Amino acid sequence: MRIAFIGLGNMGAPMARNLIKAGHTLNLFDLNKEVLAELAELGGQVSASPKDAASASELVITMLPAAAHVRSVYLNDDGVLAGIRAGTPVVDCSTIDPQTVRAVHAAAARQGVDLADAPVSGGTGGAAAGTLTFMVGGSDALFATLQPVLAQMGRNIVHCGEVGTGQIAKICNNLLLGISMIGVSEAMALGNALGIDTQVLAGIINSSTGRCWSSDTYNPWPGIIETAPASRGYTGGFGAELMLKDLGLATEAARQAHQPVILGAVAQQLYQAMSLRGDGGKDFSAIVEGYRKPE
Amino acid sequence: MRIAFIGLGNMGAPMARNLIKAGHTLNLFDLNKEVLAELAELGGQVSASPKDAASASELVITMLPAAAHVRSVYLNDDGVLAGIRAGTPVVDCSTIDPQTVRAVHAAAARQGVDLADAPVSGGTGGAAAGTLTFMVGGSDALFATLQPVLAQMGRNIVHCGEVGTGQIAKICNNLLLGISMIGVSEAMALGNALGIDTQVLAGIINSSTGRCWSSDTYNPWPGIIETAPASRGYTGGFGAELMLKDLGLATEAARQAHQPVILGAVAQQLYQAMSLRGDGGKDFSAIVEGYRKPE
Amino acid sequence: MRIAFIGLGNMGAPMARNLIKAGHTLNLFDLNKEVLAELAELGGQVSASPKDAASASELVITMLPAAAHVRSVYLNDDGVLAGIRAGTPVVDCSTIDPQTVRAVHAAAARQGVDLADAPVSGGTGGAAAGTLTFMVGGSDALFATLQPVLAQMGRNIVHCGEVGTGQIAKICNNLLLGISMIGVSEAMALGNALGIDTQVLAGIINSSTGRCWSSDTYNPWPGIIETAPASRGYTGGFGAELMLKDLGLATEAARQAHQPVILGAVAQQLYQAMSLRGDGGKDFSAIVEGYRKPE
Amino acid sequence: MRIAFIGLGNMGAPMARNLIKAGHTLNLFDLNKEVLAELAELGGQVSASPKDAASASELVITMLPAAAHVRSVYLNDDGVLAGIRAGTPVVDCSTIDPQTVRAVHAAAARQGVDLADAPVSGGTGGAAAGTLTFMVGGSDALFATLQPVLAQMGRNIVHCGEVGTGQIAKICNNLLLGISMIGVSEAMALGNALGIDTQVLAGIINSSTGRCWSSDTYNPWPGIIETAPASRGYTGGFGAELMLKDLGLATEAARQAHQPVILGAVAQQLYQAMSLRGDGGKDFSAIVEGYRKPE
Repeated sequence: MRIAFIGLGNMGAPMARNLIKAGHTLNLFDLNKEVLAELAELGGQVSASPKDAASASELVITMLPAAAHVRSVYLNDDGVLAGIRAGTPVVDCSTIDPQTVRAVHAAAARQGVDLADAPVSGGTGGAAAGTLTFMVGGSDALFATLQPVLAQMGRNIVHCGEVGTGQIAKICNNLLLGISMIGVSEAMALGNALGIDTQVLAGIINSSTGRCWSSDTYNPWPGIIETAPASRGYTGGFGAELMLKDLGLATEAARQAHQPVILGAVAQQLYQAMSLRGDGGKDFSAIVEGYRKPE
Repeated sequence: MRIAFIGLGNMGAPMARNLIKAGHTLNLFDLNKEVLAELAELGGQVSASPKDAASASELVITMLPAAAHVRSVYLNDDGVLAGIRAGTPVVDCSTIDPQTVRAVHAAAARQGVDLADAPVSGGTGGAAAGTLTFMVGGSDALFATLQPVLAQMGRNIVHCGEVGTGQIAKICNNLLLGISMIGVSEAMALGNALGIDTQVLAGIINSSTGRCWSSDTYNPWPGIIETAPASRGYTGGFGAELMLKDLGLATEAARQAHQPVILGAVAQQLYQAMSLRGDGGKDFSAIVEGYRKPE
Repeated sequence: MRIAFIGLGNMGAPMARNLIKAGHTLNLFDLNKEVLAELAELGGQVSASPKDAASASELVITMLPAAAHVRSVYLNDDGVLAGIRAGTPVVDCSTIDPQTVRAVHAAAARQGVDLADAPVSGGTGGAAAGTLTFMVGGSDALFATLQPVLAQMGRNIVHCGEVGTGQIAKICNNLLLGISMIGVSEAMALGNALGIDTQVLAGIINSSTGRCWSSDTYNPWPGIIETAPASRGYTGGFGAELMLKDLGLATEAARQAHQPVILGAVAQQLYQAMSLRGDGGKDFSAIVEGYRKPE
Repeated sequence: MRIAFIGLGNMGAPMARNLIKAGHTLNLFDLNKEVLAELAELGGQVSASPKDAASASELVITMLPAAAHVRSVYLNDDGVLAGIRAGTPVVDCSTIDPQTVRAVHAAAARQGVDLADAPVSGGTGGAAAGTLTFMVGGSDALFATLQPVLAQMGRNIVHCGEVGTGQIAKICNNLLLGISMIGVSEAMALGNALGIDTQVLAGIINSSTGRCWSSDTYNPWPGIIETAPASRGYTGGFGAELMLKDLGLATEAARQAHQPVILGAVAQQLYQAMSLRGDGGKDFSAIVEGYRKPE
């Protein structure tokens, strides 16, 4: 299959690599020449613009950092919609606000092009290993077309509903995740301050009503879960800046929907304070450090 | 075995019933004559005071509503410590602050009596069914003595460490639970406001990083989990007033330990606002109603 | 002086009326034909577009509801910048984000046009009475030009610094105002619940370290300040929806600046919850109703 | 007048000094021998116990650190109530919870003794200068008796209502103060991050709706108010630990009254986090440091 892949950053590049390995022909675009050269060596074709990449392909995939990039990659004069043929399926894997997704979807629809949003979770590790989760918002027909290709880059391909619902699923999940991680941090730090063994406490929580992924899989207290970032200096997981980005999307979507998200807003501010202290590059579970005496 | 059982309220009475069924002889005390009469019919012995109950028993169990009751039941002139023989094992199943536990433990120790704290989770349903979880703080020897008796009233008998750690485990878990439930409420309400199907959203959360007991077992959104209070008008679960009591214990213990618990304190206030609106008698998952347009 | 006045809503119309009274010739534009007809009767000239209004004027004033309107009024094909002559002074009195102000200022500057932002406080009452406060961000020269004209619509004309600082001053002040009002509400409600006379409490606060405008001038408790909205059913002041708009601008500007605003974010969510309950049309001081037992 | 003065710490000692200067004969009690010796040199009489001090006096004044000390000074075997004659007026100037005040008042009343609470504000500086504010809760007759004596130690002697209302006034005011200070910190830090001159911003706030004592008299931003702790490294004002004590009293009183105080609870936790970072000894306005990039 001839696939346009636009946006080859920390996530996009390993995803594209998996598609090349799976035997597809990729028309690649990015502003970074180095990554293009690297993927060309693996057999990818370098395109001069998103327009050129799209016009030469049977499927278009984009993976971009923010809504502004999505708008320009699709809507600019040399953008995807300037070159694409009617009927070509399109999927945007960026994590952005649902409003932008719907606006770009509407512009595409006017040209007979159907677009799905499919933000991912799983991080750069999951992108390299091909074990990402894709949360797909789009028509049933488009989902059926995309599913086998996405499955070559990920393990869970979930259909969330109409276009935009992929983003909604992701920001709602990550809103909860951002809150849970702080909740676990407070519970562990309080237990430690009051004198219970933290390993025992985690065990009780994990078999009780406090049980959650942030405790049983990714516990922020050092030494509880060997494979968690907390046990390796809070490196190499899901960075606090990325959590901040997702909480920003969630609270902004909530604002537009006139929906209160009280703990979510506090969580956003606490990660922001962590970032201000200079710790935005650490895994988001390092939020627990604000609850312990500095050494 | 001759067991003193003091405090026969909504929790204590069914617990005592299970011990009678298991063949023990119970010396009972409570201010409520009706419940005493009822348990006497099942074979229990009614005592005139905690002192009398304790002096006639090989083991003392107490299950009381708050710290003030614990202090008076143990320390008053006709209290447990006025009658107990040195060497008699004692366990207090009340949910109270760790400081009071330690103070009563110290008073008991001066008489050669060892006391454990063993707050429970599982509610009145678990008390009746004998499926409670006991979080036990006390010496290894005392835990070994208590374990078989507690197992006649519960399913999980967890040793948390020294005296007081049972309370610590419970308040830390419930601090997290109180936060998680609000987090799930915000995520579900936001998803609903943005237009994703709530059943689909819950499914995604439950197989992703937002996964938690408050979502996969006790989801506050009506219709998601058939057996949850949300699907029966928020009746018959863990009342918001009980959650408020536990969050009060957690934030007060945090204050004494000079430990911040930011989301925990907000959670406490939100349940307090729910109570002020007149909904304190509902299951605590009804906190989600504050996130939906009133009908 | 020939002045273009674009945006004749609840604030703009009375402001324009004051300029007509002061003897200026106004070139008016709005989408609402009724208000145009009304102002034409007072002597205003109706223009066909922002472009036409600007091209015929020595000064341009805009007063619009949100950033999207500002962008289109200035940048569209029939917008202000399409018709304006180089050197014409421009002032935008809308309350919007500082980023949009700076973007429109840059576009104007490329045509030799200097623009100031001058958001107001004082509400529709102040607009009618000509007692508004203008917070002006712009060059010294432009401020000197604008000052006498703004003084015909307001009482306090404050120079805040370079372009954008008018907006910054307004959102920082209103962030604090939104927080203070909730702080006073909590203090008054707590005092009332604990049994102190609320009039006595307000008197003590107002002569002590809790003293603030939200307490001594606009106290949210009914009956404390006769002239405050609380004493007339929370009608006719600064609506909660307007406070929500300003807190949205403040937290979004904070997000972009990577600056935490913890209480500000909670305040925003609490007004949002008030709006969800159906009280967004009330004066923002009605936030206190969430702290009292419903009647 | 013969006055018993019990509790001669940082506040009590300078208060007692002012009474000696005013010509009263003081019967002094404290556990600290040094301060007793020092005051004896000024003419004070040292008593062997609170009981002895009270039995020899026409008026009893106490100034103690916390509720536990108040209970023991009044209720112990050698306490005030063991020695006092019926009809002797009593005033407790400690800052404690209203419940303890009412309990001690009730015990005193059973002996024909009337007690008022009169917590102060103004700090050690005000105690030395005799410019304290006294917030007095007690009967009209007792207030009339106490007023002239308190006026020898302070400037504002405010009658707040029945016994306990002095404490209520103080904790409600300080709840608001704790919130306002954080509100000002967030507004100043946001303005600074967005690029407005902080001196200009403070000026605008102080003549607008954000106006408050925390901004116009005690601004937390360095250099705004010359006499404020912010302009001398956050030394020598109202320590964060004292603010924490008062917020603890306020949230605990709120909990007992089933009254939500949402921003108040967040404020308490933010000062707690400041204390955890090691800054509890600084003036409470140093809370602003958590909103700035560390240097």
